[in-house]
Amino acid sequence: MSEYAQNSNWQEVITYPLGKRTAKPRNKGLTMVIDKGIGIGETRDLLQINYQHIDFLKLGFGTSALYAAGTLEEKIQLVRSYNIDIYPGGTFLEIALWQNKIREFLDTCKFFGFTAIEVSDGTIPLSEEVREQAITLAAEKGFRVLTEVGKKNNGAEVPVETLAKMALRDLQNGAYKVIMEGRECGLNVGLYDAKGKMADEDLQVIMNYIGDPSLIIWEAPLKIQQQDLITRFGSDVNLGNIPPQEVLAVEALRVGLRADTLQLVITDPEEI
Amino acid sequence: MSEYAQNSNWQEVITYPLGKRTAKPRNKGLTMVIDKGIGIGETRDLLQINYQHIDFLKLGFGTSALYAAGTLEEKIQLVRSYNIDIYPGGTFLEIALWQNKIREFLDTCKFFGFTAIEVSDGTIPLSEEVREQAITLAAEKGFRVLTEVGKKNNGAEVPVETLAKMALRDLQNGAYKVIMEGRECGLNVGLYDAKGKMADEDLQVIMNYIGDPSLIIWEAPLKIQQQDLITRFGSDVNLGNIPPQEVLAVEALRVGLRADTLQLVITDPEEI
Amino acid sequence: MSEYAQNSNWQEVITYPLGKRTAKPRNKGLTMVIDKGIGIGETRDLLQINYQHIDFLKLGFGTSALYAAGTLEEKIQLVRSYNIDIYPGGTFLEIALWQNKIREFLDTCKFFGFTAIEVSDGTIPLSEEVREQAITLAAEKGFRVLTEVGKKNNGAEVPVETLAKMALRDLQNGAYKVIMEGRECGLNVGLYDAKGKMADEDLQVIMNYIGDPSLIIWEAPLKIQQQDLITRFGSDVNLGNIPPQEVLAVEALRVGLRADTLQLVITDPEEI
Repeated sequence: MSEYAQNSNWQEVITYPLGKRTAKPRNKGLTMVIDKGIGIGETRDLLQINYQHIDFLKLGFGTSALYAAGTLEEKIQLVRSYNIDIYPGGTFLEIALWQNKIREFLDTCKFFGFTAIEVSDGTIPLSEEVREQAITLAAEKGFRVLTEVGKKNNGAEVPVETLAKMALRDLQNGAYKVIMEGRECGLNVGLYDAKGKMADEDLQVIMNYIGDPSLIIWEAPLKIQQQDLITRFGSDVNLGNIPPQEVLAVEALRVGLRADTLQLVITDPEEI
Repeated sequence: MSEYAQNSNWQEVITYPLGKRTAKPRNKGLTMVIDKGIGIGETRDLLQINYQHIDFLKLGFGTSALYAAGTLEEKIQLVRSYNIDIYPGGTFLEIALWQNKIREFLDTCKFFGFTAIEVSDGTIPLSEEVREQAITLAAEKGFRVLTEVGKKNNGAEVPVETLAKMALRDLQNGAYKVIMEGRECGLNVGLYDAKGKMADEDLQVIMNYIGDPSLIIWEAPLKIQQQDLITRFGSDVNLGNIPPQEVLAVEALRVGLRADTLQLVITDPEEI
Repeated sequence: MSEYAQNSNWQEVITYPLGKRTAKPRNKGLTMVIDKGIGIGETRDLLQINYQHIDFLKLGFGTSALYAAGTLEEKIQLVRSYNIDIYPGGTFLEIALWQNKIREFLDTCKFFGFTAIEVSDGTIPLSEEVREQAITLAAEKGFRVLTEVGKKNNGAEVPVETLAKMALRDLQNGAYKVIMEGRECGLNVGLYDAKGKMADEDLQVIMNYIGDPSLIIWEAPLKIQQQDLITRFGSDVNLGNIPPQEVLAVEALRVGLRADTLQLVITDPEEI
């Protein structure tokens, strides 16, 4: 065997085409995973291989309410043991606000061990006041607060300026990051059209208001969206709603170890 | 911590927007899962979290024949330990009928531990007589009998009245429920068009014949189909061909803990 | 119980509609699985049930570089314990060639335990000379060598004759099989159009050059492609980029235990 045979670290052999990633704990380059109900064993499996690539795990929608006794706590403890933040889906909190149970809801989240909270208005319209109170209350109780802007219903058009202003206000009110709605499907929702593409002008409006792209987590469930956002903002863009089984593939996209982003740096198409 | 902190039961905090579900064992509100070959560990994982939400597990098509030695029995025992019915795909039984081996087939199913049987004619045309004999024989051997109506081949048009009459006859012959074909894809099959939508008139014909919607299990692999059926028939509609990884998400849809069905009860779009 | 009750072998009851498959180890009827980052437990799960149906496991793209410390070796050892070949994605090797690190790359592959290597030019154009050297070098180091022809970028049109000639040359240079590019999506890539269908004329050109279909592994991630290839070439066609969760379903397709290929032998549509 050659002198390289003892090298167990790929990084000493291969240079990541899009450069190194910011390592955890980090405030940019975040990956948020959407979990629609994977088992405890599968969660353990996921984290064993990918823990360095995951910053947030979201238990989608209100699935948190539907786990068999004892299993929700077990999953949360497991995720926390890797220093990964975990939170219930925004729709669940919207229901709590709608049923006038926000304090009880947050206390129950605390009891189960959640470390973060998402404040959204995807289905239930919130006044500015109620939104701000929810952010403040969650922060007071020690949660890391994410907010989300954008409607889930493609019928409900909201001007992008309104979304941008809301995002800015959330950050001023104490939100750690603002999530741009993309749902699980990525089509006909938020800033995405029926083919999952983002309008350049809308994006520009958002960036004009927010300035720092690291303040936004883009829900980007589809590969074309992940590729597009990495192309626009680089490896360390914050991506959300990544399916568990795509975490490693998304990480490969981020560093250029996959054709779709590798091609960004193949500037000379001549043969080698 | 507040007085709510010790509350580990979400149901004391949040009211399910679409109401409570009928609990197992139940004759309505059934969820049938299609298993195309998940491993033993993944099955254990699935059941640990979701056993209350699953009534039937189907080992799709003829996959039952292709498990490594010992593993089919192990999976079946595991599923049965949660009091969930398990059966091989209908196509497998069709092949047995076609090869004139129905008795041997049913005995082998018994040997492996299956508890239910699906009688279908998705690919192989059965006479009324053969169909009835299969139902009767399976029932005699102690299986819970499901039947299925609808062709898998989108070229083979069958009038919806024919399907409705066949379903009614199956129930009279002892079938526990009748499954409406939707395949794994949900497109261009049974009552679904190329976009996965169901024709209102066809549905009406079926219901005119059958009357009680709880006698039908609708194969509904796509979210738009699950949402549509819950909207039409309520939380306790019977849904089939649910992928394992979607069980918790479908349960959230059923009770209104997900935007797509929560919006059914958000009658007042004013801000809170 | 009847005399059949002790029969635990389906093959004594049911005849596979498309006939028996060549058993492992085999040089045709190969199934190559694409692994985008499944966990160790899920891999164990997959192999326990399906080891007889899997010949190659590919760790897609450059994901091999991104496993948490110790987990890549563990996965590779597990796969090898079932006598299944395992190799890193072709894009990863392309990057090594591009960075002039092919020897170091191959040594590191050896160190981690990979048993096969894929030489491709999906993103980075290779001269004939560099391609041949890579094949030779990998073979010298004891790897089983697969090559791939076809571009990943749907913009880059390559005449099918060029692909066919390249495939033939690779085989003459020592490649065990040639993979026809289909990517993970199967759309608008290689010989597939935007709907995932293969052009008959292109296929004919390939076969005119290669002759023996068992020398080709067709990347066929979509069911319509698997069905089409089994229809054209029979049960023992070599199929690649099969998702882990589809292995058993693909095996059912191969032997006719699923409607889509069972219909090939239902020549008489009369009732039984």
